[in-house]
Amino acid sequence: MNTPPSQRLGTGTPRLSLNRWSFRTTPLQEFLEITASHGVDAVGLWRQDVEEVGLDALRRRVDDAGLRVSSLCRGGFLTAAEGTARAAALEDNRRAIDEAVALGAPTLVMVVGGITQEDKDIAAARARVAEGIAELAPYAESAGVTLALEPMHPMFTADRAVIATLDQALDIAEGTGSAAVGVVVDTYHVWWDPALAQAIARAGEGGRLLGYQVCDWNLPLAAEPLFSRGYMGDGYIDFPAITRMIAATGYTGDIEVEIFNEDVWATPADEAARIIAERFEQLVLPSA
Amino acid sequence: MNTPPSQRLGTGTPRLSLNRWSFRTTPLQEFLEITASHGVDAVGLWRQDVEEVGLDALRRRVDDAGLRVSSLCRGGFLTAAEGTARAAALEDNRRAIDEAVALGAPTLVMVVGGITQEDKDIAAARARVAEGIAELAPYAESAGVTLALEPMHPMFTADRAVIATLDQALDIAEGTGSAAVGVVVDTYHVWWDPALAQAIARAGEGGRLLGYQVCDWNLPLAAEPLFSRGYMGDGYIDFPAITRMIAATGYTGDIEVEIFNEDVWATPADEAARIIAERFEQLVLPSA
Repeated sequence: MNTPPSQRLGTGTPRLSLNRWSFRTTPLQEFLEITASHGVDAVGLWRQDVEEVGLDALRRRVDDAGLRVSSLCRGGFLTAAEGTARAAALEDNRRAIDEAVALGAPTLVMVVGGITQEDKDIAAARARVAEGIAELAPYAESAGVTLALEPMHPMFTADRAVIATLDQALDIAEGTGSAAVGVVVDTYHVWWDPALAQAIARAGEGGRLLGYQVCDWNLPLAAEPLFSRGYMGDGYIDFPAITRMIAATGYTGDIEVEIFNEDVWATPADEAARIIAERFEQLVLPSA
Repeated sequence: MNTPPSQRLGTGTPRLSLNRWSFRTTPLQEFLEITASHGVDAVGLWRQDVEEVGLDALRRRVDDAGLRVSSLCRGGFLTAAEGTARAAALEDNRRAIDEAVALGAPTLVMVVGGITQEDKDIAAARARVAEGIAELAPYAESAGVTLALEPMHPMFTADRAVIATLDQALDIAEGTGSAAVGVVVDTYHVWWDPALAQAIARAGEGGRLLGYQVCDWNLPLAAEPLFSRGYMGDGYIDFPAITRMIAATGYTGDIEVEIFNEDVWATPADEAARIIAERFEQLVLPSA
């Protein structure tokens, strides 16, 4: 916050989008201003932001900062069995699609939900996800929003997302028969996958690569493993290699940096944004 | 240790093998005696046990307890680049194969190694693993020992094993052209895999299913994620479902219970063995 925006504008960082949760502890307005001040023109937002300031006010603030929304996070949680919980989940997803429309976000990121200790039948849970996504697809299509299924790292299969690989996400997306359903590739979740290169190519060929999110895999894992997401370069992920796979599909969309990390959140936001832009320009952009 | 062995012998638990590391804090001799006292006839051992008491003494103790060795853990760590480290790793693996022979263990479990922050090229590391395994296969063949590649959970891809899925392990095993190379299925490492059923069937069809290890996936993850392995039934894994996949291949070998868990290690060993046998009989054996 020390360097006036005018001294930094103009250089900018093409392709870069800053995800709101990389700056979770920064007030929303400050986050938007810092993003713009670094010449970044897009942000990934969360439904919590909508709750915090209201849909219209959020859109206005984004517009006023000269930004656009690259994605809205998150819909999903579709593993509940038939009944009230499932109906409520579907209804909540329709609301999330509406919010994406109102924010001008082209894509809603879908974290599909886990299993419970009471019902460990993961194949059945996965089938319910596929059915739920198929049920939402026409609504997304008419809203002009795409649903980006997010395969999550297998350490989250039990409690967050029964979709664990990109191929599995693509099977479900293709199974809907709808062009409104695709996938988002998040390096933290998929970097380990021996089938990654082929799966990314498959997503590209099918026109289903809807987003690319980056952060590193830090070790040792944080007590809350979600928070082991690090600045690119701090961990073990080969960003040039994965970014080349993405570029080979012809993807020219936004690249969101989404870091959940207590140390990053404790860093002054302007400094964190500077580091993110620097690492992005070193490790991601040259291959993008 | 309160019930005399004679009151328990005779019932026994077919198929069950107790892995040494489920009783890491128990002295070796006590571990062997407790295992036998529960009517279990096999143990999975570690090379640390060889170091502790010596190869001949270890074999004698196992024999004297009326037990046999279901597997020896572990060879592997084959991701080092060409040079001294790689030659040393290969030589160490040959010694591990010799130890398996001396212990009468049919199988050496292979944890193949990770990557480093200095060299994040995971495809190259994987290629080195495949080469190393191919180089060791003839030695294992003439020793009459099988090499069981262990796909490890993707949260260990960076630091322990670049083999992350059963299909990847099978690709490498089949690529050697040697009947001495196969895979071990450990529920903790593979339960999340959407391709699991097909991959287990593939292992069975190719005659490459060399072992089956069980423990649960406990949440929240322990500070050291390796130690989130729990008693069957305490976590999220559907043991009947996975055990049916294993049984469908015709596998009739040992089923090792391998739990790394601070709470289990703090439990009196005889009580832990009782719980393991009980959960095994409830959740695994009926489907085996």
